[in-house]
Amino acid sequence: MPGNRAVIYRGPGHVEVEEIDYPTFELQDGPGVNPDNVGRQLPHGAVLKVIATNICGSDQHMVRGRTTAPEGLALGHEITGEVIETGRDVEFIKTGDLVSVPFNIACGRCRNCKERKTGICLNVNPDRPGSAYGYVDMGGWVGGQAEYVMVPYADWNLLKFPDRDRAMEKIVDLAMLSDIFPTGFHGAVTAGVGPGSTVYIAGAGPVGLAAATSSFLLGAAVVIVADLQEERLTQARSFGCETIDVSRGEPADQIEQILGTREVDCAVDAVGFEARGHGEQAETERPATVLNTVMDVTRAGGAVGIPGLYVTGDPGAADDAAKHGSLSLQIGLGWAKSLAFTTGQCPVMKYNRQLMMAILHDRVNIARNVNATVLPLDQAAQGYAEFDRGAAQKYVLDPHGSIA
Amino acid sequence: MPGNRAVIYRGPGHVEVEEIDYPTFELQDGPGVNPDNVGRQLPHGAVLKVIATNICGSDQHMVRGRTTAPEGLALGHEITGEVIETGRDVEFIKTGDLVSVPFNIACGRCRNCKERKTGICLNVNPDRPGSAYGYVDMGGWVGGQAEYVMVPYADWNLLKFPDRDRAMEKIVDLAMLSDIFPTGFHGAVTAGVGPGSTVYIAGAGPVGLAAATSSFLLGAAVVIVADLQEERLTQARSFGCETIDVSRGEPADQIEQILGTREVDCAVDAVGFEARGHGEQAETERPATVLNTVMDVTRAGGAVGIPGLYVTGDPGAADDAAKHGSLSLQIGLGWAKSLAFTTGQCPVMKYNRQLMMAILHDRVNIARNVNATVLPLDQAAQGYAEFDRGAAQKYVLDPHGSIA
Amino acid sequence: MPGNRAVIYRGPGHVEVEEIDYPTFELQDGPGVNPDNVGRQLPHGAVLKVIATNICGSDQHMVRGRTTAPEGLALGHEITGEVIETGRDVEFIKTGDLVSVPFNIACGRCRNCKERKTGICLNVNPDRPGSAYGYVDMGGWVGGQAEYVMVPYADWNLLKFPDRDRAMEKIVDLAMLSDIFPTGFHGAVTAGVGPGSTVYIAGAGPVGLAAATSSFLLGAAVVIVADLQEERLTQARSFGCETIDVSRGEPADQIEQILGTREVDCAVDAVGFEARGHGEQAETERPATVLNTVMDVTRAGGAVGIPGLYVTGDPGAADDAAKHGSLSLQIGLGWAKSLAFTTGQCPVMKYNRQLMMAILHDRVNIARNVNATVLPLDQAAQGYAEFDRGAAQKYVLDPHGSIA
Amino acid sequence: MPGNRAVIYRGPGHVEVEEIDYPTFELQDGPGVNPDNVGRQLPHGAVLKVIATNICGSDQHMVRGRTTAPEGLALGHEITGEVIETGRDVEFIKTGDLVSVPFNIACGRCRNCKERKTGICLNVNPDRPGSAYGYVDMGGWVGGQAEYVMVPYADWNLLKFPDRDRAMEKIVDLAMLSDIFPTGFHGAVTAGVGPGSTVYIAGAGPVGLAAATSSFLLGAAVVIVADLQEERLTQARSFGCETIDVSRGEPADQIEQILGTREVDCAVDAVGFEARGHGEQAETERPATVLNTVMDVTRAGGAVGIPGLYVTGDPGAADDAAKHGSLSLQIGLGWAKSLAFTTGQCPVMKYNRQLMMAILHDRVNIARNVNATVLPLDQAAQGYAEFDRGAAQKYVLDPHGSIA
Repeated sequence: MPGNRAVIYRGPGHVEVEEIDYPTFELQDGPGVNPDNVGRQLPHGAVLKVIATNICGSDQHMVRGRTTAPEGLALGHEITGEVIETGRDVEFIKTGDLVSVPFNIACGRCRNCKERKTGICLNVNPDRPGSAYGYVDMGGWVGGQAEYVMVPYADWNLLKFPDRDRAMEKIVDLAMLSDIFPTGFHGAVTAGVGPGSTVYIAGAGPVGLAAATSSFLLGAAVVIVADLQEERLTQARSFGCETIDVSRGEPADQIEQILGTREVDCAVDAVGFEARGHGEQAETERPATVLNTVMDVTRAGGAVGIPGLYVTGDPGAADDAAKHGSLSLQIGLGWAKSLAFTTGQCPVMKYNRQLMMAILHDRVNIARNVNATVLPLDQAAQGYAEFDRGAAQKYVLDPHGSIA
Repeated sequence: MPGNRAVIYRGPGHVEVEEIDYPTFELQDGPGVNPDNVGRQLPHGAVLKVIATNICGSDQHMVRGRTTAPEGLALGHEITGEVIETGRDVEFIKTGDLVSVPFNIACGRCRNCKERKTGICLNVNPDRPGSAYGYVDMGGWVGGQAEYVMVPYADWNLLKFPDRDRAMEKIVDLAMLSDIFPTGFHGAVTAGVGPGSTVYIAGAGPVGLAAATSSFLLGAAVVIVADLQEERLTQARSFGCETIDVSRGEPADQIEQILGTREVDCAVDAVGFEARGHGEQAETERPATVLNTVMDVTRAGGAVGIPGLYVTGDPGAADDAAKHGSLSLQIGLGWAKSLAFTTGQCPVMKYNRQLMMAILHDRVNIARNVNATVLPLDQAAQGYAEFDRGAAQKYVLDPHGSIA
Repeated sequence: MPGNRAVIYRGPGHVEVEEIDYPTFELQDGPGVNPDNVGRQLPHGAVLKVIATNICGSDQHMVRGRTTAPEGLALGHEITGEVIETGRDVEFIKTGDLVSVPFNIACGRCRNCKERKTGICLNVNPDRPGSAYGYVDMGGWVGGQAEYVMVPYADWNLLKFPDRDRAMEKIVDLAMLSDIFPTGFHGAVTAGVGPGSTVYIAGAGPVGLAAATSSFLLGAAVVIVADLQEERLTQARSFGCETIDVSRGEPADQIEQILGTREVDCAVDAVGFEARGHGEQAETERPATVLNTVMDVTRAGGAVGIPGLYVTGDPGAADDAAKHGSLSLQIGLGWAKSLAFTTGQCPVMKYNRQLMMAILHDRVNIARNVNATVLPLDQAAQGYAEFDRGAAQKYVLDPHGSIA
Repeated sequence: MPGNRAVIYRGPGHVEVEEIDYPTFELQDGPGVNPDNVGRQLPHGAVLKVIATNICGSDQHMVRGRTTAPEGLALGHEITGEVIETGRDVEFIKTGDLVSVPFNIACGRCRNCKERKTGICLNVNPDRPGSAYGYVDMGGWVGGQAEYVMVPYADWNLLKFPDRDRAMEKIVDLAMLSDIFPTGFHGAVTAGVGPGSTVYIAGAGPVGLAAATSSFLLGAAVVIVADLQEERLTQARSFGCETIDVSRGEPADQIEQILGTREVDCAVDAVGFEARGHGEQAETERPATVLNTVMDVTRAGGAVGIPGLYVTGDPGAADDAAKHGSLSLQIGLGWAKSLAFTTGQCPVMKYNRQLMMAILHDRVNIARNVNATVLPLDQAAQGYAEFDRGAAQKYVLDPHGSIA
C-alpha cells in the first residue's frame, strides 16, 4: 500500500504537507470527524489517485482562522482523479476511469438527492444537510488535497470523462468541474442570466471569474465584474468582461458609465461574508456590503444569485450579529424592486456533465479565464499564501506530477 | 354628471367619506399626485361604477401614519366594477362589462409588462417601477374606495367576467381578485407550493388566509397558519388549516407537534415590516421576526414567498436601520439551507384570470375563507377601525348598494 | 424459504396463478429475460412481501395478445409491499419498511436517473432506455403480481411510508402510487394543468380517472372526461367530472355544451394506441383518433400530455403503418395552434412522494375515484377478464390477505 | 404623400414590384383582406419607412403556388424601419424611432398576448389565432416588402433600438430580429438546448442557420446541421457547425461519425412540410421525413422544437392526407423515447429584446451566419428566384437604399 501525502491545516495561516492514512473503505476517526460518522462502511466508495486538486476560496476561510476547523484537518474538496480501486458495491464506475468529483458529497438515495439537490444531501453529514470533503462541520470526510482520496457513493458521485486521452489534454479545464465552474454557473443561472442579459458580478476571484465565464456561455450581452484588486480585474478584462474597481466609488455610478443605465438585469454575489466596503470603506470588512450593493444595482424584477458563502457562525466577525450570521440588509429596497434571491452551495451534479461537454468541445476556456496555475503538492503552502494575498490565480495542485 | 363620494385619508387614524371629482380622462392634480403625472391624458382609460372595493392591510400602513401619505388622499386599490364609459382608444372593453381591476396599474407597453411583470410597470409611476391606485408614492392615481374610478389602459388592465349574472352571484369572491387572492397565491407559488407540500404561512390576516386558500388550491398536504390573534387563527382553522399561536412559543416547536418534524417545505411571509415578536416578545414590534422565522422553519432547499410588504422608508420604525428599510436577517442560516426568496408586489394579471375560473367553477371559496364582510361606503371608517384592531374579517365596501 | 405464487401469462386471453421461484439476489433466466440480464447480481435489491399489486391497463395489451410477450411471463408492475430482506448493499431501506415501488425500474446512477428521468434509465434494460417489472421487452425483471418480488436498487427505487399503521389505513390509496396516480398526474402536469384550467381527458379507465383526480388536485376549474363506456363515465361523474360519451358525436360539440366554447386549455390522452373511433366509428379500432381529437379540442397555445401508451410494434394493428407504430396525425392543425406534446412513461419517482403526502393528509381520494376493488391473488384471472370487459374498476390483488 | 412601391404576388413563380396605396390608419379592402378586417381603424398604428425587409422561406410557400394566396397580395413580414408617423393613440413610440417589427401581429390586450403568446393573438385575425403581415389567411394585413408599411398596436408591437447610430451600424443583423433569429432561437429553446447540448438541426436554410446560431448562443457543445444542398452546408460549417448531407444516407449514421453515438440531446425541425427524403429519396417530397428523422436521432428524454411550418391545407401535396395536413408519424417510437414536441409560430416578442442586446454587444453574428445579402427593392424578383433555387443566402431588401 502506497503512502498518502496531504495538505493539513495546522492553525491560522498555516498549512503543511504531511503523511496521512491511505484511504480504506471505512470512515476512520480523525480531526473533525463527526462521531456518528466514525466507522461508517463505504463499500460503495472508490479510491482515487488524485490528478488535480484545487485550492478554493472557501478553504481560505478555514486557513485564515475564521472558522472552528480543527488542527490536523486534511483539506481539499476540488478533486479530479483516476479510479484505482472500487468497493464491492460499485457497479458502473471502473478502475482506470478518469473522473471529476463534485465537492458536495451526496448519497444518491435521499429525497434531496432524488430532487437533484445534492448540495443538501440528508445522509452524509450528521450535523445538517450537505457535506464536502476536507471541510469543517461537514461530517469529517477526508480532504482531497492529497495523493489519494476516498469518494463514497462512487457510482452516484463520480462524473466519468468519456475519453481518457482527450480528457488529459484538457485536464486543467476539467479540474474546474469539481467546484468553481459549476458554482459560478449556478450563480449565473439563479441570477437569471440568459442570452442578452446584462450581468453584475461582485468579486473577481475564481468563483466570480467562473460566473463571468458562465454568463458568457449562457449568452450574456455584457458582463461587469467588480473587485478591489486591479490584478483580478485585469484578468476579468482578458476575456471580455467590463470591470469596476469598487475602491473608486459606487458601483451604480460605474455601471452607468458602461451601460448608460445604473442597473443590470442580473447580479451574482461571488464574495460572501468576508466582503469589504466600497470607496473609502474598502479597507474595512463589511459583510453585508455585497448583498446590499446587488440590491442597489439590480433592476426591478431581476434576480440575484448568491454562491458567495455566508455562515451561521463567524467568531472573527466585527459585531455580535455577524458572529451569528445575521447581517443588516436593505430588504425594503429589495422588496420594492421585486427581487428574488437564491442562496446556498451549488448542487454540482446538476451542471457538471453539461459543462464538461462545453469544455471537451472547445466552447469555453475556464482554466485560462481563472488563470489556473499548476503547482506540485509540496508547494501547496505557497499557493495558499499567494491566493490569500489576492493573486489573480487559481491554484491547482498536481500530487503525482500527472499534469506537468 | 353624478357626484363621487370617496374614502379620504385625513391624518393618522382618521378616514372620512367625502365628495371628490368625478373621473375624467385626464389625471388631475391633487394630494399625492406626482407632478410629472399631472395632466396626463387617459384616452385609453375607462370609468367604472365601483361595485366592490376592499380595505387592504397595506391601506392600514398609511392610515396608521406609518408612511408619508398626504392628507386628502383618496384611498383604495382593490376595485371591482362596471364599465360605464370608455376612452376613445379603448377597443375591446365595453360599457356594461363587469370587471376586476388589478391593483397594479400597468401600461401594457413597456418591457416589464411584456414580461408579465405588471407589478413593476415602467410607465405609470415617475418615481419608480410599479404603481397602484390611491397609494402613497405610487404616482398619484386616484383611489377606488369611491363611487366611481378611472382605470387607465383599460384594455390591458381590466379582467372582464364572462357572464354578468353568474358574476354577480359570486361578486364578493370575485372582489378578492383585485389584490389579496392573487397576492396570497403569488406568495404560495413563489414559495414553491404544490401537491403534497407542507406550508407555513406567517400571518392570518386576509393575505395570509388567501395564501392558505391558494396553498390548498395548489394541492398542499398541510397548511399551517401562524398569528398572534386567536380570532384570526379560528378563521384559519375553519377551512382546514392547522394553526400556531406565536405568542405561545417558537413556531418550530409547534410545527413539530403538528408534523412530527420542525420544518416545512415552503413558507410565506404574509406579515411584512409591521411584524411583532414571538412568545414574550409578542407585544413588541420586531420587523425582522417573520423573515428570520421563515428561515428557521423552512427545510433546506425550500423557498420563501414574501408578499408581506417591506418598505424603503419607515419613519415610525424603532431603530435607524429599520427607518431606511434595513433589517438584521440571519442570512447565514438561510445560505446554509440553500433557501430561495421572492419579494415584491404580486403581478396580479399573471394570475387573476385563472383564479377567476376557479371561483366561477366553485373550486374555491375565497370570500368565506377570508370572512369577507360587506359594508356600505359610509361605514368605511368603521371598517378601517375594526380591521386595525385585528378583526378576522376582510371588509368589502359597497358604494352603490349593488351587493346587498 | 416460502413458496411464491404469481400471475402468469399463458397466451392470449389467458392468465393463471402458478408457483414461481422465490426471489434471490440474482436475476435468473426465464421467460422474456434478456440474455444480457441473466445472472445479474442484485446485492442492492430488496425482497418484498407484496401487500397490494394492481392490474394495469398496459398488462391488458399483453394479455390480449397485442404484444410479443412470451408465455410463462410473470406479470405485474404496480407493487406495494413490506421489505422482508435486503441485499448487503442496501443502507437506508430496512426490513419491516412498508414501501411503494415505482413501476419504472431505475438504477439511480446513470445520466437519466440523475436528471429525474427514471422512466428511461440507461442501465436496467439492455434493449432500450426504460424498464418495468413483468413486462415484455423490458429486460426480464420478474413481475410483482405475486406473493414476493425482488426490487433492485432498493435504496433508490423504494418510497418508504413514514408511519406503518397510518399507511395500512390508506393502503388501497397508497397502492395507486406505483403507477396510475403518478401516471395520470404526469399527464395532467405535462398538459399544463393548473389552478383554473379547463381540461379534456380522453379515456375514463384508471389512468384517465387518475388524471382527472390529479387535475382537481392541481386546481383545475373544469375536468371533462370522455369515454365510450357509460359505466366509466358514471364513475367519473361521481367525483365532480363533466363527461362526454364519444359514441354520441364529436367531442368539440359536447365540450361546447359544457363550457360554451369548443376548446379546453389542456388535454390528456389516457387511451393510447388501442383507441376506437367516435360516433358511428365507435366499434372500430382507430389508433390515431385520440391524438387527432386532442389537437382539435385543445386551444391554441395549449399543451397535450400523452401518458396513453403508443408502441413501436403492434402486430395486431389494422394497417401496416400502425404495425410499426406510425399513425396519421393532423400535425398541420397542431402546428397552426402552436400545441406542445409530451409523450412517454411517467417518471414515477418525480411525483410519488408528494402524492403520498396528499393521500396521507386526506387531500385526495384516489382509490375511491378509480373505484379500487380488492381481490385475492387467486382471483386475478377474474380481475383481468372483468377489466378487459371495461368494468369501471381498478383491481388490486391482495396476495397475503393483508388488506381484507 | 409619397408613393409606395411593394413586392406583389402575381401567381405561381411570379412576383412584381408595383405601386400600392400609401398606408393609412385604416385597414383597407384588398387582395386577401378578411371582410371582418375591412375598415378596421388603426389609431394605435404607426407608419414605418421600411429600412430592411427580408424574403422569408415561408413567403416561398406562397410564391411556389402551394397555398391559396390571392394574386395581388403585397408580400413581406420581416420588417425593420423608421417610424415616420404615429396614430393618435400611440404614446411611447415616437417619430424617428428605429424599430424592429415582430412578424406576428398582436393586439397586446387579449389573454394570449398577456401570456406572452403573441404568435396566437386572438384579436387580429378573424379566421384563427395568430397573424402576420402580407400572408395568406392571416387577416389581410398589408405586407412590408415595400417602401412604407402600417404597423398596428405600435406601442406593443415595436421594439425600439436604443441608439440610432449604433443600430444603423448593425442594421443587417438587427433586420433578422423580425423573424428568423427569434424563430430559430425558439426552435432551439423549445428543443431544450443549453450549455453542453448536442443538437441536430434539420435544414440549413436561414431558419436552420439561425437555430444553429442560437444554439451556440445558448452554449451548445456540438451543433449538427443537415441539408441536401452542399452550398448551404458549407455556410453552416463557416461558423462552426458540423454538417450532414442527408442525400448521402441516414442521419443517425452520420451523427455517429461525428459524436460517437447515434443520438443527440435536442433536435430542431427547420424544414417543415416541404421536406424531401433522405438518401435515394432525396428528390421526392416526403413531408413527414424530417419529423420522423428527429424522433429517430433524438435521445430518450429529449425534446424537439418544430419551427418549420406545417399547414392545415396543402393542395399541392402528394397524397390526400397530406393535402389536409395529416402525416404518418412514428409516434410509437417517439413515445418509447419519452420525447416532447413544441410546434408553432415563434412568439417573437418573447425573445427579440434579448437577441437585440446580444447583437448590439457583439455576442452574435447572425447576418454573417445566414449570409445576409442586401438587394434593392427592384431586385426582389431575383432574390425570390435565387432563394427558391436553394442559394445559401438570406435576402434583405433595401427599399430606400438606406443600408447600401
